[in-house]
Amino acid sequence: MKILEDRITKDGKVQNGGILRVDNFINHLMDTEFTDLLALEFYNLYKDSPVNKILTVEASGIGIAYATARLFRCPLLFAKKNLTSNITKNVFSAPVVSYTHDKTYNICVSKDYLSEKDCVLIIDDFLALGNALEGLISLSEQAGAKIAGAGIIIEKGFQGGGDSLRKKGYRIESLAIIDNMDEEHGIVFRK
Amino acid sequence: MKILEDRITKDGKVQNGGILRVDNFINHLMDTEFTDLLALEFYNLYKDSPVNKILTVEASGIGIAYATARLFRCPLLFAKKNLTSNITKNVFSAPVVSYTHDKTYNICVSKDYLSEKDCVLIIDDFLALGNALEGLISLSEQAGAKIAGAGIIIEKGFQGGGDSLRKKGYRIESLAIIDNMDEEHGIVFRK
Repeated sequence: MKILEDRITKDGKVQNGGILRVDNFINHLMDTEFTDLLALEFYNLYKDSPVNKILTVEASGIGIAYATARLFRCPLLFAKKNLTSNITKNVFSAPVVSYTHDKTYNICVSKDYLSEKDCVLIIDDFLALGNALEGLISLSEQAGAKIAGAGIIIEKGFQGGGDSLRKKGYRIESLAIIDNMDEEHGIVFRK
Repeated sequence: MKILEDRITKDGKVQNGGILRVDNFINHLMDTEFTDLLALEFYNLYKDSPVNKILTVEASGIGIAYATARLFRCPLLFAKKNLTSNITKNVFSAPVVSYTHDKTYNICVSKDYLSEKDCVLIIDDFLALGNALEGLISLSEQAGAKIAGAGIIIEKGFQGGGDSLRKKGYRIESLAIIDNMDEEHGIVFRK
């Protein structure tokens, strides 16, 4: 998506260790008008699938997932990273290794809200090694839900998570795929 | 807000220990069309203030905050509960005691995104003792930002956090205020 690649080139900051900072428009300060355009692209990509639920995981995916869900006029289900006393223990759960936080945690959704009647579109802001996405796929499959596919804002193609899932037959649509980046050469997008 | 009180009465579940479960339409499975209506109410309440930024804290406030920010056509800044390697250490931070998780954590926002030029509207899904809201107010005041006020979906009036902040002069608008609730008598809303 050209306007996204242009925005990443203009506002993104490449740091050592394969880190791309886009906290000035995506994952800390969110440009909501721009995010609505990204959501519209996900809608156009998946509008022919019988999507009845958007699935994401807290926290930074919730904004784009909300924007997408309202276009599909369907509910948004966000997996929790921590069980609270407000959610019963009746959950599907899956372990996720976090690259940014350097730890493993369980994500979970209540069994009340995901079932074989659902066709989910999984939305997230980033896809790198694919751990969070694999966790969301696992939750959906435990519930017997159909998976229309995934919509990702930025995929770090060089980390392989997206291509590995595509090989397994999942539909993964990323609005920008970065095949290479470093401080010296900048960002190279997949054509 | 009548439609919200009706929805809480219909779908909310009162549990022992002052817990109200609304995870079937607010903080786990989100009804996005309904959330857009709540956001419109916040917009109408604050549209005469020069709001240029919506402030919330991850995670469950992000959906309603996003819906509100897009009506104000302004960015959404969500405070983080954990610093990641993707955010610099250049932050304002405030300690918050979590009632639901029974622990204290620091919330923070980058100093790059909040300043004396801002007029923030703070949005969150719940207000009970007021700890999270006080933390968000503290971040705004550290930055020298003006605070238009706060917009809360559900306030647990009987826990006093909202009234305590109103006495200090802050404008706190809650779409439903619960003055009493228990499993036997149900939910009593403030008139």
